[in-house]
Amino acid sequence: MNFPSNLFNSHSKKDGDFFLGMKKILGFKPKNLEIFQKAFVHRSANRKDKEGNPMNYERLEFLGDAMLGAIISKHLYNKVPGGDEGYLTKMRSKIVSREHLNELGKDLRLIDYVESKIPKSRFGDNIHGNVFEALVGAIYLDRGYKYCDKFISEKVIAPYVDIEQLEGKVISYKSLVIEWCQKQKKSFNFDVYEDTGNDTVKHFAVKLTIADKIVAKARATSKKKAEERASKRAYFALQDKMKES
Amino acid sequence: MNFPSNLFNSHSKKDGDFFLGMKKILGFKPKNLEIFQKAFVHRSANRKDKEGNPMNYERLEFLGDAMLGAIISKHLYNKVPGGDEGYLTKMRSKIVSREHLNELGKDLRLIDYVESKIPKSRFGDNIHGNVFEALVGAIYLDRGYKYCDKFISEKVIAPYVDIEQLEGKVISYKSLVIEWCQKQKKSFNFDVYEDTGNDTVKHFAVKLTIADKIVAKARATSKKKAEERASKRAYFALQDKMKES
Repeated sequence: MNFPSNLFNSHSKKDGDFFLGMKKILGFKPKNLEIFQKAFVHRSANRKDKEGNPMNYERLEFLGDAMLGAIISKHLYNKVPGGDEGYLTKMRSKIVSREHLNELGKDLRLIDYVESKIPKSRFGDNIHGNVFEALVGAIYLDRGYKYCDKFISEKVIAPYVDIEQLEGKVISYKSLVIEWCQKQKKSFNFDVYEDTGNDTVKHFAVKLTIADKIVAKARATSKKKAEERASKRAYFALQDKMKES
Repeated sequence: MNFPSNLFNSHSKKDGDFFLGMKKILGFKPKNLEIFQKAFVHRSANRKDKEGNPMNYERLEFLGDAMLGAIISKHLYNKVPGGDEGYLTKMRSKIVSREHLNELGKDLRLIDYVESKIPKSRFGDNIHGNVFEALVGAIYLDRGYKYCDKFISEKVIAPYVDIEQLEGKVISYKSLVIEWCQKQKKSFNFDVYEDTGNDTVKHFAVKLTIADKIVAKARATSKKKAEERASKRAYFALQDKMKES
């Protein structure tokens, strides 16, 4: 048989790159790489599995959506002991809203791995959230509930789930941080610069300096978002100090 | 202080009875009995926890509902490799339908443990399903995901989730069993009798005999349901035999 000589090498190279990319996103090594590959196959690719069933991320998305709902519910249950069923339900739907999941998927740059016949520029925003859900489904199948819980805690709960902000009690962390600096007579500076890197979409990076010390960095698709994100990080880092004052 | 002398005894006795009841329902020993007790407190009881928050099963119901959704999704994902996202979603909503959950709660006689100020006879049907969901939430908190999965597999998936019947491919197990008996020229008999036991609602029990051998028993709130349930059990017990013929 005449295989092109670089077939296996190029295949391994591609798998190797994918493995490293996943490891970085997940924070752990994937065991069964095939499961994760499936999480990025768009239906337009028209892939089939060995049994002839369509192979794309949609089934994993179904699974991931349900796991995400359960894990977010568990966190809310523990985090808000005084919230009744209605409150918990409302908070959960804010956290797992389409918009929020799309943002998560974008931040992890999941679209870079998507396999499709449609040009990526023609996808709507929902591809980001859908692939994020599929990734959660893949984590569950590959490593079980605990890894899934850990991933969601680190990637969804810690950076995004702030009950006070979700409740609308805190509108802007930037203004909280500025107020605090002014009250404390400390200088502050938001150093914003373009940092698109390998992204297709323009990105901005922010360094937030308070009293000549860098207290937080952040990166997002708009200046405003990046500033707000850095402020939020600074807010939590400085929280104890701010509460004292 | 003048405690009534039997206070602690009667309290322990009540807890002991509850513990045994739970152990029977769950199939394992509850660790933290308080969590399970909470799963049966109706809001009308007006109970508060130490922090003054309302204490009833509604928060556990929120948690259990989400866990149930995730675990059922996982089972469907594994059980139906050829089903697409739309199919899986449809099947899941049939399994976790209000009606289905009410039936589950009734079969486990969960209402016997409900604490409320409203007479139980005045509750609608949904109390059964709501308490069932709260129980799932309590299992999660007490023992974690794996026990939750095991409980749902044994109590929901095994006896109730039959993809073919959910899809409407099998309308009646009773007719399948009768057909088979007639084809095989075997005698059969559905022996139905009233067996209300300690229930408030009338119940019927069925013994299904094929060729003078009891092959299945079942119990339900109507004759028809009990016969169908016994037939389903017989069908699965006899499945290999039936497929051969």
